[in-house]
Amino acid sequence: MKIGISTWVWTSPLRDEDVARLVPHIAALGFDWIELPIERPAAFDYAQAARLIEVHGLGVSVCAVVGADRDLSHPDAAVRANGMAYLRHCIEAAQLLGAPTVVGPLYAAVGRTWRMGTEERARLLDQIAAHLRELAAYAAARGVALAIEPLNRFETSVINTVAQALELLERVDHPACGLLLDTFHMNIEERAFDQALRQAGAYLRHVHACENDRGAPGSGHVPWTEVGTALRAIGYHGPLVIESFAAEVAAIARAAAIWRPLADSPDALARAGLRFLREHPALLGTAA
Amino acid sequence: MKIGISTWVWTSPLRDEDVARLVPHIAALGFDWIELPIERPAAFDYAQAARLIEVHGLGVSVCAVVGADRDLSHPDAAVRANGMAYLRHCIEAAQLLGAPTVVGPLYAAVGRTWRMGTEERARLLDQIAAHLRELAAYAAARGVALAIEPLNRFETSVINTVAQALELLERVDHPACGLLLDTFHMNIEERAFDQALRQAGAYLRHVHACENDRGAPGSGHVPWTEVGTALRAIGYHGPLVIESFAAEVAAIARAAAIWRPLADSPDALARAGLRFLREHPALLGTAA
Repeated sequence: MKIGISTWVWTSPLRDEDVARLVPHIAALGFDWIELPIERPAAFDYAQAARLIEVHGLGVSVCAVVGADRDLSHPDAAVRANGMAYLRHCIEAAQLLGAPTVVGPLYAAVGRTWRMGTEERARLLDQIAAHLRELAAYAAARGVALAIEPLNRFETSVINTVAQALELLERVDHPACGLLLDTFHMNIEERAFDQALRQAGAYLRHVHACENDRGAPGSGHVPWTEVGTALRAIGYHGPLVIESFAAEVAAIARAAAIWRPLADSPDALARAGLRFLREHPALLGTAA
Repeated sequence: MKIGISTWVWTSPLRDEDVARLVPHIAALGFDWIELPIERPAAFDYAQAARLIEVHGLGVSVCAVVGADRDLSHPDAAVRANGMAYLRHCIEAAQLLGAPTVVGPLYAAVGRTWRMGTEERARLLDQIAAHLRELAAYAAARGVALAIEPLNRFETSVINTVAQALELLERVDHPACGLLLDTFHMNIEERAFDQALRQAGAYLRHVHACENDRGAPGSGHVPWTEVGTALRAIGYHGPLVIESFAAEVAAIARAAAIWRPLADSPDALARAGLRFLREHPALLGTAA
């Protein structure tokens, strides 16, 4: 069972010195996996990070950070083109890093929400799917896969639920484009964790294991037994990655709406979350 | 046990013809209570509504709608003064309507979020508390009480949790200022429903009974047995009011981030929610 953590728990954006510090630190804490958000292209050296990650025996995933100027759902073709360029960069970074997946809300900018009619929505999904299909091929050629993440209603109006993600994935229709589910968002949007995970089924390539308030897994009310049982039922093989955000770092706290510390320290959150996930009977043996 | 519903499930903003239609309709559906949001002061006739509500044997509460121009936490004194004038109007409306409570996020505008340090936060709570104490006295003199509502992190950065609300209420220190808890927001922000409700204790004057996705109570994963048991343990006597939002009404759907219908129709949501709450064994006998 591979349990990972995002560097967002400690800092943002990542620079070479953060990678040099956090890769050994995360390995020493006992994690099997590290997730690296790419906020600014080439802000750290991917090949150098890859060597360090390999030395420390960690798995790795790349998290795409989709802001207003990189939005595949935007009406302006230049913004979409910029989104494509950014996501191709993330795929290349994943290849250099040895990461099997580029994950995140690849389909739309975080924080842009608007009301859509059924037809507008169908046209938009077609548009996004065409972009994602092209990216999936680009990724597959480099041994990388995409995992798109439904977000809660306050962060996007495009894909909030597994059911909506499947509408998009069926349009994309490429084996290198799957699904990331994050228990923080699921807790708001899904009527039942169990059903949503089973509905995701073989599409599920990545899981963000987060508490309902973004605190350490196990500190809130996410039904982990139900989650673990469903993950086992669908034969999930990917990692469980703790994603939370350092309340101390202004830019990330603002972006993720973190207004209070969710643990005594980033390390305390990491340690408590890891221990809980590692020892949870329903999660034991879930992931590969 | 009084079970209520907000007119927001059907429409917004309320006009006289909506009141004339919805009061009999909500009574006929079997509810005991109606909640009336006041978006525009005097957009409907309070005395006339009061007569209709009395004829139909309903209890009633007033929901304050706190937008950017009515914000008690705003740095601009004119905006705060406008907020005070608006909330005094809501209190007068409650008195005319025969409503015991004015409820809602009275302390800050919905949708305004920003990062605060500990000292800035303490100063802000002092400022808000002074305003709320004045309003509580104004309300008490009219037989009305206030119930402030913590909102989730995407809608406010001022009060997200019961613990934070208590910090404010202790500063207000007036018996006519209590707490409203909404299970939708609690689901995101509270580590345990049970603990949060017990912490609220005697401060709790009002409950919004909502599913995790704002659908009909019972259709999602809110732990209603835990909620009902805790409400009974603290001797809660107020109503349980279903608050959801008509996905069909553009302004309200946008304001509440409702991007998909949460039931087949407003009536279907109301009927299913009422039946569930009425028949739930842990909720039976909870409220007066």
